[in-house]
Amino acid sequence: LSLSEFDLIARHFAPMAAPGALSLLDDAAFLTPPQGHDLVLTKDMLVAGVHFFPDDSPRLIAMKALRVNLSDLAAKGAVPAAFLLGLALPGDINNEWLASFAEGLDADSAAYSISLHGGDTVRTSGPLTVSITAIGTVPSGRMVRRLAMNPGDAIYVTGSIGGASIGLQLRLNPEAAWAKALSPTARDFLLDAYLLPRPRNSHSAAVLAYANACMDVSDGFIGDLTKMLAGSGCGAAIALHAVPHSPAVNEAIASEPALLATALTGGDDYELLIAVPPEHALAFEAALPGQRLARIGTAGSAADGIRFFGHDGAERHFAQGSFRHF
Amino acid sequence: LSLSEFDLIARHFAPMAAPGALSLLDDAAFLTPPQGHDLVLTKDMLVAGVHFFPDDSPRLIAMKALRVNLSDLAAKGAVPAAFLLGLALPGDINNEWLASFAEGLDADSAAYSISLHGGDTVRTSGPLTVSITAIGTVPSGRMVRRLAMNPGDAIYVTGSIGGASIGLQLRLNPEAAWAKALSPTARDFLLDAYLLPRPRNSHSAAVLAYANACMDVSDGFIGDLTKMLAGSGCGAAIALHAVPHSPAVNEAIASEPALLATALTGGDDYELLIAVPPEHALAFEAALPGQRLARIGTAGSAADGIRFFGHDGAERHFAQGSFRHF
Repeated sequence: LSLSEFDLIARHFAPMAAPGALSLLDDAAFLTPPQGHDLVLTKDMLVAGVHFFPDDSPRLIAMKALRVNLSDLAAKGAVPAAFLLGLALPGDINNEWLASFAEGLDADSAAYSISLHGGDTVRTSGPLTVSITAIGTVPSGRMVRRLAMNPGDAIYVTGSIGGASIGLQLRLNPEAAWAKALSPTARDFLLDAYLLPRPRNSHSAAVLAYANACMDVSDGFIGDLTKMLAGSGCGAAIALHAVPHSPAVNEAIASEPALLATALTGGDDYELLIAVPPEHALAFEAALPGQRLARIGTAGSAADGIRFFGHDGAERHFAQGSFRHF
Repeated sequence: LSLSEFDLIARHFAPMAAPGALSLLDDAAFLTPPQGHDLVLTKDMLVAGVHFFPDDSPRLIAMKALRVNLSDLAAKGAVPAAFLLGLALPGDINNEWLASFAEGLDADSAAYSISLHGGDTVRTSGPLTVSITAIGTVPSGRMVRRLAMNPGDAIYVTGSIGGASIGLQLRLNPEAAWAKALSPTARDFLLDAYLLPRPRNSHSAAVLAYANACMDVSDGFIGDLTKMLAGSGCGAAIALHAVPHSPAVNEAIASEPALLATALTGGDDYELLIAVPPEHALAFEAALPGQRLARIGTAGSAADGIRFFGHDGAERHFAQGSFRHF
């Protein structure tokens, strides 16, 4: 890479910076928070070879890095406002790569109404690392908590579960029998689901208005739901056949039944788990017309335990509930 | 490392988290900004082998990572409020290392009144990487800009210049004649100056009250001052003999005169360059009684150029004004 840090920022990132970022020429940026609001702060760090493949499209890497943070804001009922970008670049990154990365970031920053407010670009001897801090806003005192479910709450999940984790298996084992048996449509869908999360920011106003608790499913449906219930002091009976899967996921599972556990425990879904008090359930559903939203169970008391049931009514157990880095 | 990410955070970082960080068990944290204030946002990323030595004390690595961000807040006249910590850990990091890192972070977070509001911990195949986002507050519309000097402004620098960059040379070339000739006191001072910045947050109220412009000197005194003047459309005549050096730096320069250029162009000083309108210069100085503050020149018109003069009155030129990563 022949650019200085100064030129790299001026060329690739300054054009998309917010007014408060002063063309990224200052030590810091400023942000005027809307009156009567709290800020919601989140930070996700992605490392090549851990969270994405080093040869993934730089445009999609940028979008994924921003979208995993947007998903956290959606889960808290927050409206996206600003983000900061930390980028540790290995020596083989060139200007073409950076231009494509910046283009992806710019497109999503516009699509989700979140503005670049600064950051830092450094050299690393290791893998490409993208560290994004995202800031959103909620009315004061209203951030939706993760561990605030109550017994009786209706439990919902958005979208569909398992596409990303089966997409990852497809990347890792393209020669598996089930992988070779997939239709081209299903294959494309699964690969795309892994590469590009669809954070549910369109659901966040309804979450803010009606939810007792919410979290985004990033480390696996079973593990994240268990964490949310246990941390809230709740039990639940969850109907696994009510958990939505895409046609592509169903196609893969039909060919290889062991992939059902992959779908339910694998990471990277970026869907929302939402707990809504029963008296608000209808209004909540009405606030999201035409959106894919599945009611998968009802929270109970901790004494009931957290139990998962299959379509045959038999209880299911999972050896490892969620994705672990360490 | 045998801990899960969950256990690692619960053990090392949750005890120091702010109330709004919800024991680091949620997707995000909240922060209630003081009414009538803007937020000041900054992010600095540090990579082992680039910004610190991999075998530096984890306590000091944590403090440096936080302090370089605190220095940016000081330069903007901002009061520290919150920070988020991104940590990419290589496989050889153990619990003892993490405990020491967390202890350093906790100590500085208390010393500078800035609270941990979340973050992310991931695994990396590369060097340890610390990415901190810091958030401060200023009265609305009052963030002190970097490129807002005016002709006539008095130019000040805090503290002393060159200790960190000569300290780095001492780490890299311990067998150099000048290095071996240093007194033990000077050696300790220089090594410490490189390891641990002293951000000038105690000066930020005076900067907010009186400065037209301010930046922190992180990439080298000559280069940073040149950037600040040129970006403001100003020239200046700078008296290099007025630039303060510590006794240890003077001792090193006396033994090896080439180190004067190292001191003036090397990085990691984390002092402040402050431009104050002439009518406020006395009040500004009076607001910082007993603080080390040197007046090093006066801003002029761009047509005058940016010129540096030595104690003999001769103009000095520097081949490379500042530290470059790329």
